[in-house]
Amino acid sequence: MLPLSLSPSLLLPTTRPRARASNAFRAPRMDRESRISSFFPPLLHRDLALELASLMESRLGSHLLPSSVPDNVKSFQNQAGTSVGSLDIRYGAPGSSIDFLLESWLHCKVPTGSIDITTLLAYQNDSTDAPHFNLEFIQAGPTSLVLLLDLIPRRDLSFCPDYIDRFYQRTNLDKSRHDLEKLPQVVPYRSPSLYIRSIWSPTAILVNINCGEGGAKQMEEIINLTIASAAKEVLGIWLESCVGAGTGTEIGQEERDYMVRRDRVVKLKSIEIDLCTNLPRLFDSDIANRVIAEIQKACAR
Amino acid sequence: MLPLSLSPSLLLPTTRPRARASNAFRAPRMDRESRISSFFPPLLHRDLALELASLMESRLGSHLLPSSVPDNVKSFQNQAGTSVGSLDIRYGAPGSSIDFLLESWLHCKVPTGSIDITTLLAYQNDSTDAPHFNLEFIQAGPTSLVLLLDLIPRRDLSFCPDYIDRFYQRTNLDKSRHDLEKLPQVVPYRSPSLYIRSIWSPTAILVNINCGEGGAKQMEEIINLTIASAAKEVLGIWLESCVGAGTGTEIGQEERDYMVRRDRVVKLKSIEIDLCTNLPRLFDSDIANRVIAEIQKACAR
Repeated sequence: MLPLSLSPSLLLPTTRPRARASNAFRAPRMDRESRISSFFPPLLHRDLALELASLMESRLGSHLLPSSVPDNVKSFQNQAGTSVGSLDIRYGAPGSSIDFLLESWLHCKVPTGSIDITTLLAYQNDSTDAPHFNLEFIQAGPTSLVLLLDLIPRRDLSFCPDYIDRFYQRTNLDKSRHDLEKLPQVVPYRSPSLYIRSIWSPTAILVNINCGEGGAKQMEEIINLTIASAAKEVLGIWLESCVGAGTGTEIGQEERDYMVRRDRVVKLKSIEIDLCTNLPRLFDSDIANRVIAEIQKACAR
Repeated sequence: MLPLSLSPSLLLPTTRPRARASNAFRAPRMDRESRISSFFPPLLHRDLALELASLMESRLGSHLLPSSVPDNVKSFQNQAGTSVGSLDIRYGAPGSSIDFLLESWLHCKVPTGSIDITTLLAYQNDSTDAPHFNLEFIQAGPTSLVLLLDLIPRRDLSFCPDYIDRFYQRTNLDKSRHDLEKLPQVVPYRSPSLYIRSIWSPTAILVNINCGEGGAKQMEEIINLTIASAAKEVLGIWLESCVGAGTGTEIGQEERDYMVRRDRVVKLKSIEIDLCTNLPRLFDSDIANRVIAEIQKACAR
């Protein structure tokens, strides 16, 4: 199979003038844009993250049920108003391969400035063994960004070389990682959690980008060019090769049962280590608990 | 559990004056040293690799049967004499947790100079689920070295966070990786094979060290100090925590069966991609086939 590229239909929502967009597409996109823009301070990776979230949502349209979270989870802030957040979860519609789509925005003032974490996760259900989608931006000021972009494998890769071949080799996913890591501002990012380091695919983009003092303009260019290109390529491959009927490998019941149990550990542990560790540090406990409960409900289904 | 350090007994063979070593220990060590030194041209990482191989062999003493390979596998060369190699395999003794120990030395003239690959692998059997040991030096000239040093996991880490905790977190294995990657001459090494990238642990040391023109002295120092320290630390942890009875996690028959099948794929695939790809390029086909047959025999048991 040749390397996949974004088809015109995949790119349509991002290039089509807004005035011509259908109501069905414009409504959630405008809702998201206005909610995030009014609630959060400006942010270098915002436009790209909004574009990717809208692209994913519009492409998955019929795969998704409406938002499942209450308003006080969709937007929340701490008493002092120094930390604000937004979480949305949309479950997959019956018959879809999507388990749920999670979108989260966090902005927090910290002693050294502020930190912004934007997460876009799409977990699949057991109708396919095709990978999950993971995108996370962690921005600590205008010149420093951690990017975690991957199609998270759902099989034990050491035991399943064919799975690597199907979803990572033939799709040429490694090219985006390679292009990004060539930039002189980029160094590999390693999670402090050994567990988190273990969930990624061999083509995962896990990088720390530092542009140094006065490098905000340079960071903006890297985000708008190299990161945007990599993120759209990886999302495009996921939407094209991993979502929907017939995208998985034929697997027996025993393997499927194993995958379901494995998926549950990956979801619970990775979200526990990531969001569930950060939220109580940044928000009052009742808010953190409310938000975490929604995440755990989605992971434990 | 506190981070483990090398116990005096582990270090004894490397610090004890040779004249006082027992015959049982001196015999294989001297045999190896004289065989490698007489057969291969000088090599920066040789003394360290010999020291580690001897340390491992002396510590595993009663765990190992005598060498299983014929003389024309223990030493071989191509017709032109530009490529020379040595392979030794020692199977684990009955009752030991060792499946087999593989030691390989390859020296090959290539158009750009020469390449030297030294490999030391210790695979475990199904009496334990404790990791395998992997050490590989790939030296392309006196200023360039790839080091692959890891305790290769035998469980699906995404599904087994306890396994990570037991063998990688509590042993503080990440410290050696961290210390080595701090050096300015070190960049991460990524195998071109996506499969090989998938077999490592989250604390694997996979680095490319380049000291630039005239940097042979600097490389020597890095090998003798930082790499020697990391390699001894990792080998010490493996010998202390992973070899012998009671080192594994309690696992049921179903998990054990899975591990055995998984182990077989890891061994066959990783050796196939590595040695079995390189050998036919470097040696006449009858020699390459003879050597590969011995490796495959060990992997397929």
